[in-house]
Amino acid sequence: MRVLLVGAGGVGTAITRIAARRSFLDHLVVADYDLSRAEAAVAGVDDGGTRFSAARIDASDQAAVTALLVRERCDVLLNATDPRFVMPLFEAALAAGAHYLDMAMSLSRPHPERPYEECGVKLGDAQFERAAEWEKSGRLALVGLGVEPGLSDVFARYAAEELFDEIEEIGVRDGANLTVEGHDFAPSFSIWTTIEECLNPPVIWEKDRGWFTTAPFSEPEVFDFPEGIGPVECVNVEHEEVLLIPRWVDAKRVTFKYGLGDEFIETLKTLHKLGLDSTEEVAVGGTRVSPRDVVAACLPDPATLGERMHGKTCAGTWVKGTKDGEPREVYLYHVVDNQWSMREYGSQAVVWQTAINPVIALELMARGTWTGSGVLGAEAFPPQPFLDLLNAYGSPWGMRDQ
Amino acid sequence: MRVLLVGAGGVGTAITRIAARRSFLDHLVVADYDLSRAEAAVAGVDDGGTRFSAARIDASDQAAVTALLVRERCDVLLNATDPRFVMPLFEAALAAGAHYLDMAMSLSRPHPERPYEECGVKLGDAQFERAAEWEKSGRLALVGLGVEPGLSDVFARYAAEELFDEIEEIGVRDGANLTVEGHDFAPSFSIWTTIEECLNPPVIWEKDRGWFTTAPFSEPEVFDFPEGIGPVECVNVEHEEVLLIPRWVDAKRVTFKYGLGDEFIETLKTLHKLGLDSTEEVAVGGTRVSPRDVVAACLPDPATLGERMHGKTCAGTWVKGTKDGEPREVYLYHVVDNQWSMREYGSQAVVWQTAINPVIALELMARGTWTGSGVLGAEAFPPQPFLDLLNAYGSPWGMRDQ
Repeated sequence: MRVLLVGAGGVGTAITRIAARRSFLDHLVVADYDLSRAEAAVAGVDDGGTRFSAARIDASDQAAVTALLVRERCDVLLNATDPRFVMPLFEAALAAGAHYLDMAMSLSRPHPERPYEECGVKLGDAQFERAAEWEKSGRLALVGLGVEPGLSDVFARYAAEELFDEIEEIGVRDGANLTVEGHDFAPSFSIWTTIEECLNPPVIWEKDRGWFTTAPFSEPEVFDFPEGIGPVECVNVEHEEVLLIPRWVDAKRVTFKYGLGDEFIETLKTLHKLGLDSTEEVAVGGTRVSPRDVVAACLPDPATLGERMHGKTCAGTWVKGTKDGEPREVYLYHVVDNQWSMREYGSQAVVWQTAINPVIALELMARGTWTGSGVLGAEAFPPQPFLDLLNAYGSPWGMRDQ
Repeated sequence: MRVLLVGAGGVGTAITRIAARRSFLDHLVVADYDLSRAEAAVAGVDDGGTRFSAARIDASDQAAVTALLVRERCDVLLNATDPRFVMPLFEAALAAGAHYLDMAMSLSRPHPERPYEECGVKLGDAQFERAAEWEKSGRLALVGLGVEPGLSDVFARYAAEELFDEIEEIGVRDGANLTVEGHDFAPSFSIWTTIEECLNPPVIWEKDRGWFTTAPFSEPEVFDFPEGIGPVECVNVEHEEVLLIPRWVDAKRVTFKYGLGDEFIETLKTLHKLGLDSTEEVAVGGTRVSPRDVVAACLPDPATLGERMHGKTCAGTWVKGTKDGEPREVYLYHVVDNQWSMREYGSQAVVWQTAINPVIALELMARGTWTGSGVLGAEAFPPQPFLDLLNAYGSPWGMRDQ
């Protein structure tokens, strides 16, 4: 299998490092707008220069991406850029006759009149609209295949197949106890993206109602995370799983709650209250700046924090329902310790946990275990082979009955 | 009496309007860096053009201010600028042989090693160092004579003279229930200055220890403000009264607590945690800006909010001690209703409440009721004539036994 990886940031670099330890890949082209980033990612996995190469590419230039896919005879385009580039990369792969895989779906737009009640344009809508074209081409667009969405969707399918007869609610729950030495406040992921994600109207799915939205930070609950992380305050956040899971898994309700913690939630609310979340420029001493860019500039770059970071991050899917007539409740999860991921891969935990899942999916595609055509989420495929490979990669998943 | 008022912002404009209703002033020159602001303040009180005139002045240009005082034959310089200009204006008045009056004292600098335990340079230190020169010149520098400091210091002296035999603690307490229509968050005073004031180490005075500092927002307490304002969370803040009162009034302890409310306190803490309080420039998309300037640019200008503001602001002095062998506790206070100050003077409550006090002080100087030389605070003078004039101006003070 020959793969074009677009994006050599934290996640792209970790993907390269994980893929280097597996033999299924014949060739990986690592491409980035900044060639030196792509070259650095490749240099870190030097194996004689045969399996990895670097290229420069502008992810927004669809024709150039199609040409690169054709020139490099790639079977798959793996998108590790930020969500603004989903559509040009998705279309470039279709045009080149390649499969496609991403970790975040096309962007949403709030409902113009009732943003906190009804959906406007949903996450992934632009991609699902093109499903017939992908089916016709016989190619697979595997969307939302990182850790969340991605592994969380595999867990949902696994629960439906193996653990439950009937499911009342599937709730993805994400939490961590990561701290950064020397910083009072240092998010382990881009504050710019977090603001975008957290201040968009969160989406919920109910069987008798379909998709609908609520106000940001709604329905707070304290979720007890495993492996020593402990209780963290979680709130509804807009996330792909809510748009993906109901398409293939039968459940009465699907939610996503992010364990931001009350301090982080209050910080985001304060930024919003003061207008500091805005991307519209304001006049300041003879120049104009976007307040959200200023907030990002005041905080340390998350990619540089791995060495000073401590703690674990947990992604997982909580499921409530019945099995053999008895009520049941489980939490299927995956935990990464930052100390371990830094030692083993030189990548911080949040980035590494995202990166391992698309590599597993590529391996299942290369083996012919996951096959198909059209626009599909992880929950459209058999979950057991994916979970087995997670163990085989040395990063086991867990399950807690509760 | 001929007065040079420097600063035609919100407070300077309100001073002009209040002074226009009193006959003791022979002439008031309103001077500002921006001549149009000075002209606007004068135009608002047109009485035939004899008592008021406008001028342009750079408050940082000591020689130019001295020359203007001499040219206009002014008896007093009234400083209504921000505290950065205290020293040049104070020195200009001394050089011109004029009296001087301000509403905030020369700035502090934290202790270089132990900022939250010991004082460094204190508020007013630079002014008190020049006391001998003022005594020698026979001129009076009346420092810190707004509402707080100012009226609060008059209350402290009044309590010591009339209400107590022995005082355990004098605690200035400031609170409000002001809200602004159409804004989730709209401070009624400059956020830039508030950040400066609230993030400096708060100062406390104790008889057996002298002046010392604590961490910002220390010793939170809920104080119940009168006239319907109700309970507000107050915390220690650096303020002039703590530096002034112990010089002339006998008490075991002097504090200042600001009723910022828990929401405002959390907002300031969040800004500090994210580095958004900083005045050091950061690089943002090819330009450089001070984060604190960006915060100010995102919020509405407090001077423009009067029409949409509702509620009351309260300044006052809480005193605890004994009288005739019995324990006693009182709160002496002054409340301004924004609706009233807007209707009567077109000035918002916080600005108007500051402005009335220096006008009363000028009237007492003009009458010869308050006389002296050197650098003195309001508590160095008989308080009853001041409080009587406050009533006569139509803005009565109150007292609550508690």
